[in-house]
Amino acid sequence: MLNPFDIVIFGGGGDLALRKLLPAMYRAYQEGNLPKGSRILPTVREENKQKEYIETAHQALQSFLSAGEFNEKDWQAFSEFLVPVVVNVTDIDDNWDKLKAILDKDASDKSRVFYLSLPPAVYGRCCEILSLKALITDTSRVVVEKPIGYCGESAEEINGKIAQFFSEEQIFRIDHYLGKETVQNLMALRFSNALFENLWDAKSIDNIQISISETVGLEARAGFYDKAGALRDMVQNHLLQLLCLVAMESPHKLNASSIRTEKLKVLEALRPLVDADVDNNIVRGQYVPGDLQGKLVPGYLEELGEGSSITETFVAIRAHIDNWRWSGVPFYLRTGKRMNKRCAEIVVEYKPVSHNVYDDSVGPIQPNRLVIRLQPEESIQLTLMSKRLDNLEMQLEPVTLNIELSEQYKNGFHSDAYKRLMLDAAANNPALFIHRHEVRQAWQWIDPIVARWQEKGAPALYRAGSWGPEGADELLAENGHVWFNAGEQV
Amino acid sequence: MLNPFDIVIFGGGGDLALRKLLPAMYRAYQEGNLPKGSRILPTVREENKQKEYIETAHQALQSFLSAGEFNEKDWQAFSEFLVPVVVNVTDIDDNWDKLKAILDKDASDKSRVFYLSLPPAVYGRCCEILSLKALITDTSRVVVEKPIGYCGESAEEINGKIAQFFSEEQIFRIDHYLGKETVQNLMALRFSNALFENLWDAKSIDNIQISISETVGLEARAGFYDKAGALRDMVQNHLLQLLCLVAMESPHKLNASSIRTEKLKVLEALRPLVDADVDNNIVRGQYVPGDLQGKLVPGYLEELGEGSSITETFVAIRAHIDNWRWSGVPFYLRTGKRMNKRCAEIVVEYKPVSHNVYDDSVGPIQPNRLVIRLQPEESIQLTLMSKRLDNLEMQLEPVTLNIELSEQYKNGFHSDAYKRLMLDAAANNPALFIHRHEVRQAWQWIDPIVARWQEKGAPALYRAGSWGPEGADELLAENGHVWFNAGEQV
Repeated sequence: MLNPFDIVIFGGGGDLALRKLLPAMYRAYQEGNLPKGSRILPTVREENKQKEYIETAHQALQSFLSAGEFNEKDWQAFSEFLVPVVVNVTDIDDNWDKLKAILDKDASDKSRVFYLSLPPAVYGRCCEILSLKALITDTSRVVVEKPIGYCGESAEEINGKIAQFFSEEQIFRIDHYLGKETVQNLMALRFSNALFENLWDAKSIDNIQISISETVGLEARAGFYDKAGALRDMVQNHLLQLLCLVAMESPHKLNASSIRTEKLKVLEALRPLVDADVDNNIVRGQYVPGDLQGKLVPGYLEELGEGSSITETFVAIRAHIDNWRWSGVPFYLRTGKRMNKRCAEIVVEYKPVSHNVYDDSVGPIQPNRLVIRLQPEESIQLTLMSKRLDNLEMQLEPVTLNIELSEQYKNGFHSDAYKRLMLDAAANNPALFIHRHEVRQAWQWIDPIVARWQEKGAPALYRAGSWGPEGADELLAENGHVWFNAGEQV
Repeated sequence: MLNPFDIVIFGGGGDLALRKLLPAMYRAYQEGNLPKGSRILPTVREENKQKEYIETAHQALQSFLSAGEFNEKDWQAFSEFLVPVVVNVTDIDDNWDKLKAILDKDASDKSRVFYLSLPPAVYGRCCEILSLKALITDTSRVVVEKPIGYCGESAEEINGKIAQFFSEEQIFRIDHYLGKETVQNLMALRFSNALFENLWDAKSIDNIQISISETVGLEARAGFYDKAGALRDMVQNHLLQLLCLVAMESPHKLNASSIRTEKLKVLEALRPLVDADVDNNIVRGQYVPGDLQGKLVPGYLEELGEGSSITETFVAIRAHIDNWRWSGVPFYLRTGKRMNKRCAEIVVEYKPVSHNVYDDSVGPIQPNRLVIRLQPEESIQLTLMSKRLDNLEMQLEPVTLNIELSEQYKNGFHSDAYKRLMLDAAANNPALFIHRHEVRQAWQWIDPIVARWQEKGAPALYRAGSWGPEGADELLAENGHVWFNAGEQV
């Protein structure tokens, strides 16, 4: 069991805090993972917000927890952990001393987490004030949300600023996809089953697809998104991080430093895409109005309210990892908004059988496939070929085996990525957080792509409700592959 | 669809015919696999038996079909296929001309199957009469039941006698274990999944266990059994046949001649056990009275009604296949009567993971395991390690995935080994039947074991209701292995 901790949530009234962080902590409480003596300190800017905060939190939990999770009794107990504080995070003359007094009341070696649920632009200043006001103890950590920067340079700048006040060991860069139980299980499956790990290489695997498709459009993020685009918003962090976990070598121990070392090696081995490589291996797209599950939805420009933009809302990439294990295996990365279905999944497609011993009458022999789905529900499925069980003829059909299904979570346990990651930060376990070197290396791969796009071409158009521009299918067709679109594969 | 055929069941009033062969044909009818114009001709010895036969069959089907399979309407239709005939199979002066007249009424190229549901001692004479009476056409086949002989020599003699009248292509030696759907699927899984076949060798597989355990004792077979024993009754045929299918190389085409060639190669590569090898690698046992599922049952001698016998009712063997694929992998064969549970299963245990990347706290990492169960129900299960889904800690647990389950047979289709094999014989498909060379080769391996036993030692005793003598466990313990006893493994 974890020792008691304090977690200060800067931006405690914001969307992330109310939708994700408070529910995560409430679940931790329900599961017995919120140690007595811990405190959750959401910051708000104004005194009246502070007074209302407990009721705000109350309502947020009722809205954002799943059915059956909320109950008044647990809420009463949980609310005892909540200590809202008033602080203007960029104003050193604000209430910082009061916050310090609250924190310092407890033992000086109590684990202290500063969760910056804030725009990256103020990370630096906030850390600086924490330092100036002597709030940073030896057992303090800072959690920062993506996106960190718009390019390698700006990311370095932000990371450099934070590093003036926190050591790298104290900095927890979060990517919530890595907190999913299924991602944990992906590693467990790889490293505890000879059946998987012994065939986890170019000799046995044909291609790997990592797709994150969203059905939403711009939502309230227009200002941010039009400057960022899908490549920065999704590929640079989430897709590359998942790629790292799928492709990394098996470490000698599955501890934080080994995992990070192995992930970094994957990023270093990613074949750079520069100049014409970008045109040949990446398809970018932007959605136009279309039929999304029976409803006509507006296009990107309409949502943006501007006459033109070359921001990509869709990216499909054919990447290669130039190392011994993966030589020749395409890794297809894809993400987009306003796509046909909401889904995040990793599809590992094995090579076909070496030789077909059957006649054509038994039917096609589909290669084995392992599908790790992170969204909308979590699951891991293995598809094998098996004899049909309805007649004497030898006829083969694919059977899908469920290794993990989100419905199987037991004893009131919920898969909640933020819960895991916040508790990991409190426990000082950085295994699932991103090291500065990884951020740097990821941007090093992304920057030349952005550069090429700035000088050449524009996104292909795709209908909202489709699976992206045709070029994305053509990209795979060049290698004889097809995208596995959620819900369409057998 | 199969062409119409005639099947003469010699011994039509016997146990096998009534319990297995008629239900098999009834199922074939129900599933639409009994072609119109086919005839089933059970032979009986006496005229009054002939008159009663339809009613005998009627009652047999009601008794021996599974619940819900029998209905009067189908029975009426099926009974039209039944043509009982009176023949004394060893008396050439009997009704053979009448049988011939019935058979010859139909086209001369109609498929004709003689099913010898008879004691092997009369196989020869029966075949001789069939020949003398000119009943054997070009499209005739003969099906013979095990056991064929008591040793290599006597088997050769019987096979030689049959071969005087039928060519090897016409002789269908049946082993009903090979007719099970799950055995078909074992081959399908191996040869249509890279995930299996690419790890189907000594590099990846630690050991393979093939067990057939019975709870019954001698039943009505005392006279036969005490002369035969478990080695001849079960190992020489069933266990070695299953071993062949598990261990054979992948043929270029999964046709009859390739399968038989590959099976023969396995038998040829079986490391001979002679003299002291027999003592060191085989444990034989005989049951004494014991508690079988809460009931005290008598021992072998009590059932036999004799004061002494060194007949083995249990055998456990550590065998090796000396070829490139299986070098160093022990194949454990086991069979016994009056054992704890009735079960026939093949357990493929993979090697442990090369290296454990986890701390001990995640729990033991159990090697992957594929279990092909043929009895009492049919199933194929794959056991993997997966993350536990009830808490945040990384803890591993085995999960068992059902690739095939007997309940999944669909559209009224039943797994029925005799049905498949009888229809295969009618269709002239010998893939699942045993070639004379296989019988010879199997006896060549068995004979020296029998010889050693005759000159040295006696069976170890085991309690009825146990899993056999302790020596069987010790045999595996020498290699650091344990038996997977049905229903006990996780």
